[in-house]
Amino acid sequence: MMINKDKVTIVKVGGKVVEDPDSLKLLLSDFAHIEGFKLLVHGGGRSATKLASTLNIESKMVNGRRITDEPMLKVVTMVYGGLVNKKIVAQLQALHINALGLTGADMNVIHSIKRPIKDIDYGYVGDVDRVDSSMLSLLIHQNIVPVMAPLTHDGNGNILNTNADSIAGEVAKALAPIFDVTLVFCFEKAGVLRDENDDNSVIRDITYEEFKKYTADGTIQGGMIPKLENSFSALDSGVKEVIITSAFALGKENGTHIKK
Amino acid sequence: MMINKDKVTIVKVGGKVVEDPDSLKLLLSDFAHIEGFKLLVHGGGRSATKLASTLNIESKMVNGRRITDEPMLKVVTMVYGGLVNKKIVAQLQALHINALGLTGADMNVIHSIKRPIKDIDYGYVGDVDRVDSSMLSLLIHQNIVPVMAPLTHDGNGNILNTNADSIAGEVAKALAPIFDVTLVFCFEKAGVLRDENDDNSVIRDITYEEFKKYTADGTIQGGMIPKLENSFSALDSGVKEVIITSAFALGKENGTHIKK
Repeated sequence: MMINKDKVTIVKVGGKVVEDPDSLKLLLSDFAHIEGFKLLVHGGGRSATKLASTLNIESKMVNGRRITDEPMLKVVTMVYGGLVNKKIVAQLQALHINALGLTGADMNVIHSIKRPIKDIDYGYVGDVDRVDSSMLSLLIHQNIVPVMAPLTHDGNGNILNTNADSIAGEVAKALAPIFDVTLVFCFEKAGVLRDENDDNSVIRDITYEEFKKYTADGTIQGGMIPKLENSFSALDSGVKEVIITSAFALGKENGTHIKK
Repeated sequence: MMINKDKVTIVKVGGKVVEDPDSLKLLLSDFAHIEGFKLLVHGGGRSATKLASTLNIESKMVNGRRITDEPMLKVVTMVYGGLVNKKIVAQLQALHINALGLTGADMNVIHSIKRPIKDIDYGYVGDVDRVDSSMLSLLIHQNIVPVMAPLTHDGNGNILNTNADSIAGEVAKALAPIFDVTLVFCFEKAGVLRDENDDNSVIRDITYEEFKKYTADGTIQGGMIPKLENSFSALDSGVKEVIITSAFALGKENGTHIKK
């Protein structure tokens, strides 16, 4: 039996875009114009680093992930859950988008597990364990637009710092049985680039085999690798479409389309 | 026609209780044991003052209200909307209470108006204009427990700092047509005291006439006056019961009962 599912667009935005007021304003205006149901996942790492530095708390990163000891957990809870999240929610409300800021603790929407200590103790960092799609879809069907901060909880009263790309990917997967999900990762660059310094070198389509080839020859490296791994994993779990594009090309047919 | 309304208990907690981990834990455990629908409103002023001080931002208070310039708005957004709110939400989840942290901007639940400049420019301070009871009651009926930070928004993209007692009072009034509302203000002291240094001097019941008498003779003064004014105004607007009590006597028949 063929069932027509509603569409939902999940946009993940991170990097400088979130922190620069003018860029953020542009992005939110484009986001507001996306038709149909939608959900936003944001980062905020630069603001967290800035506040930590003002408070004389050192930012330690390993493989692009933040070591989150207790003082740093306070910083990210304040910055992601408060400063960045509420700024975005208030600005979306001004654009007549009925935004609702959420961490994973709110309504228990994302339960995570504190990352086990192997070589590195990441501290209060959580890996997504379970997304409550029923509560999210109930809200979305009420025309509420969830705005998700990169924070989850362990069910024992602790907030955990969680990668925003992973949250976007896991939420997309959890909603895939209920909605036709388009997942858009957007950032400063125009997409996945053949030459990271040339915004005209966007790879328009990329299959998993091509991804493997590009990582082997060094064309794709760094933070783009987990982003693409998230993307392929989302497609494998029923997400309809994954796009990596510029924060200033939302809703346009630009960027890199990930192919199954 | 007699309509049986569901009960909801609205608890406002402020003062030192919110900031001391052990007190907060006790309070949240008592709150979790309140039967039926419930909603929590919290403050967090001491933590805001502390963070501001570490950031070399001066806390200026006039008549017990915080002057909120742009740097201070960032501080209160981080502390109330992030740090305090998410800590409470995560701890309630651990107690199997399905908490949802909210500012007024979230789902547009509380729209406020920036306080006009008369003698004093309070800055980004908002007075409650409208509470969306329909969205709150929808959530409450889903067994969601809203946890409200003392922040609202002006609909133009600005978060505004808003007194937590006022939020509790206005939310209670807005929910009164839908629920039988009990509003509980709780704090360090045992209730409204005849002698502020003697916790055994609780005034058990207080009418509006008695309140006027007590303020005239100086028995009641300071921050207790607006709290009681909020209480009488709530009763006038259909709130069933208002109690001012100790944060450690939640659910007990102690404290001061406000009489119409």
